[in-house]
Amino acid sequence: MQKRYLLAPGPTAIPPEVLLKMAEPIIHHRNPLFEEIVQEVRDNLKYLFGTKNEVLIFASSGTGAMEGAVTNMLSPGDKAICVRSGKFGERWANICKAYGVEAINIDLPWGDILDPAVVEKTLKANPEAKAVYMQATETSTGAKFPVKEVAAIVKDYPNTLMVVDGITGVGVFELPQDAWNIDILVAGSQKALMLPPGLAFAGVSDKAWEFNKNSKIPKFYFNWTKELTNLQKNQTNFTPAISLIIGLMQALQMIKAEGLDNVYKRIDILSQATREAAVALGLKVFAKSPSPAVTAIVAPEGIDGQAIYKSMWKKYGVTGAGGQDQLKGKIFRIATLGYADKYDVITAVSALEFTLRDLGYKFQMGAGVAKAVECLKDA
Amino acid sequence: MQKRYLLAPGPTAIPPEVLLKMAEPIIHHRNPLFEEIVQEVRDNLKYLFGTKNEVLIFASSGTGAMEGAVTNMLSPGDKAICVRSGKFGERWANICKAYGVEAINIDLPWGDILDPAVVEKTLKANPEAKAVYMQATETSTGAKFPVKEVAAIVKDYPNTLMVVDGITGVGVFELPQDAWNIDILVAGSQKALMLPPGLAFAGVSDKAWEFNKNSKIPKFYFNWTKELTNLQKNQTNFTPAISLIIGLMQALQMIKAEGLDNVYKRIDILSQATREAAVALGLKVFAKSPSPAVTAIVAPEGIDGQAIYKSMWKKYGVTGAGGQDQLKGKIFRIATLGYADKYDVITAVSALEFTLRDLGYKFQMGAGVAKAVECLKDA
Repeated sequence: MQKRYLLAPGPTAIPPEVLLKMAEPIIHHRNPLFEEIVQEVRDNLKYLFGTKNEVLIFASSGTGAMEGAVTNMLSPGDKAICVRSGKFGERWANICKAYGVEAINIDLPWGDILDPAVVEKTLKANPEAKAVYMQATETSTGAKFPVKEVAAIVKDYPNTLMVVDGITGVGVFELPQDAWNIDILVAGSQKALMLPPGLAFAGVSDKAWEFNKNSKIPKFYFNWTKELTNLQKNQTNFTPAISLIIGLMQALQMIKAEGLDNVYKRIDILSQATREAAVALGLKVFAKSPSPAVTAIVAPEGIDGQAIYKSMWKKYGVTGAGGQDQLKGKIFRIATLGYADKYDVITAVSALEFTLRDLGYKFQMGAGVAKAVECLKDA
Repeated sequence: MQKRYLLAPGPTAIPPEVLLKMAEPIIHHRNPLFEEIVQEVRDNLKYLFGTKNEVLIFASSGTGAMEGAVTNMLSPGDKAICVRSGKFGERWANICKAYGVEAINIDLPWGDILDPAVVEKTLKANPEAKAVYMQATETSTGAKFPVKEVAAIVKDYPNTLMVVDGITGVGVFELPQDAWNIDILVAGSQKALMLPPGLAFAGVSDKAWEFNKNSKIPKFYFNWTKELTNLQKNQTNFTPAISLIIGLMQALQMIKAEGLDNVYKRIDILSQATREAAVALGLKVFAKSPSPAVTAIVAPEGIDGQAIYKSMWKKYGVTGAGGQDQLKGKIFRIATLGYADKYDVITAVSALEFTLRDLGYKFQMGAGVAKAVECLKDA
């Protein structure tokens, strides 16, 4: 018997209410019962994104919406600024390259703090850049980027869009699309939305819809104009991922019942407890400006980060994540977004202590959980 | 209390075993547990498709794999032959157009029989055509097309690919990819595979992989080369639709346990009973070469096909489908693919009789179900 606990930065644990809702007999998408569900989902997505505009829904991974944020806005030969400081920032640049858009890369060492002034300088030097592409959280490093501050800069450039990969951000911390002037905000189902992967989202500003009119990159499956027209009739352009949208209805109801501010507070304190527990164990948090979504912890000297992640999973039943690409072996990650509570953090920290002991790391057993309990006593 | 019965041509009813499997706590995709599932799914997809090659898996609707069958094979300026005889044949031509491929359309009246000689003639007149795009079943009309015969013609053209939209074909009737020389065979999860929508598939021949090397249409999310490399490691290029792949594992086990030939026989006799029941009620089957997947029935003189479909759904609990585009109001459809048995057909025919009576159609009550029971007595 081994109970399993999922604290990975996507997929996250799914509430039983959502799992059971999706396990009901499936319904057909071209009928009023489903259209009522889409209507409710549209309203609640606007609440989640903080926008008056429609939030498009795609049957794809989050990357499908990232691709669409390039192919529906730009034309071959355009320039775009990409903030690269991890695996997902690199993805923006790779998508641009695939579609003939010249990426002007802001290369920030992985885990470092993004200074909005660097974006401003790059924009001033490249005022023809049609978009700034960046992450809310760079999931691979656990770093949080200053979306509000960067968006305030981009706002003054009428020929530049502010595009944010909020896949590990929307529903995790404050990221109000309209109030902060985010032109495109992308999300995915398997993070704070507590669903299986398979749905992607994009909130699109009026300014972005204007850019769309001149976009010449070819597209078909991810054609946002057609998706918008259909969504306004509570439909989708192609067969939607029905069961996931039904799960989404349930998950959004739960988020709304808790209240977004309470969700943000909950996740914030869980991540704080995770970070402080790591420090109490003599470990170091990797990101200089850590995101509440996921905590990347530096593997101690002489211990392989992959060994920590694998042992936590295999021997102790807690699924976190390892490091990716250049960080493989150097860090391991514990996520606190989505369907997570204080006992999840205490469980994860316990599993980490058991694992570190096995791997020969010297520390005082219990110091991590003691710190976590202290941090979480009023949560 | 109203029990509901789903006999639409996608989504189809989902077996409780599959629903419950997908309702288990989700697991992470980057670990050995999930990789074992992918390994099994890869093997069973090869069995389903009748191919020794890998069957690619995408987190998207079926249309995503159709798009990929254009964007991963051709280049802007190429020509391709598209068989257009319904909504989905038109989709092939629309995808070609979106990506700068010149579609040479074979326009067949909706519901008519496709004569392979017409394809041969078109190919002879356009030997530079890089592909023939067609459907196994044109879902919008219920017509079955002669894939085997057309593929045998295309086989002799080394510079032309045979591409089949088998979304309403794979797992419905014989369609062995390798034996019939189908270069690309596309499928979707929400049809014979008895799953929710959200997964698309493409079996790809060696000849097609050769074409892929010269393809210059840009792609990123649907990049088949990268998908293949990942699949060979039991992974996917981007986060997979985990819950649907777990459901797929279960559904493929069920298909394998029944045996593909038995599945084909079951669906064939169910569709035959549906057609004969319709005729016994004085109705006409729309397609001249009907597919066992879905039976399109012509609405009787003076009765709106949409009214039949809607009443069957709303008042009598049976979800079929109406007509699309030019067939809206003229036909209604009852599907027999996927998780369907004889009682489903008898139920659907009963609901049709109740509906026709309500709408003032003159017929002998019970004639349809009597015929269905007769057809199904040994099934």
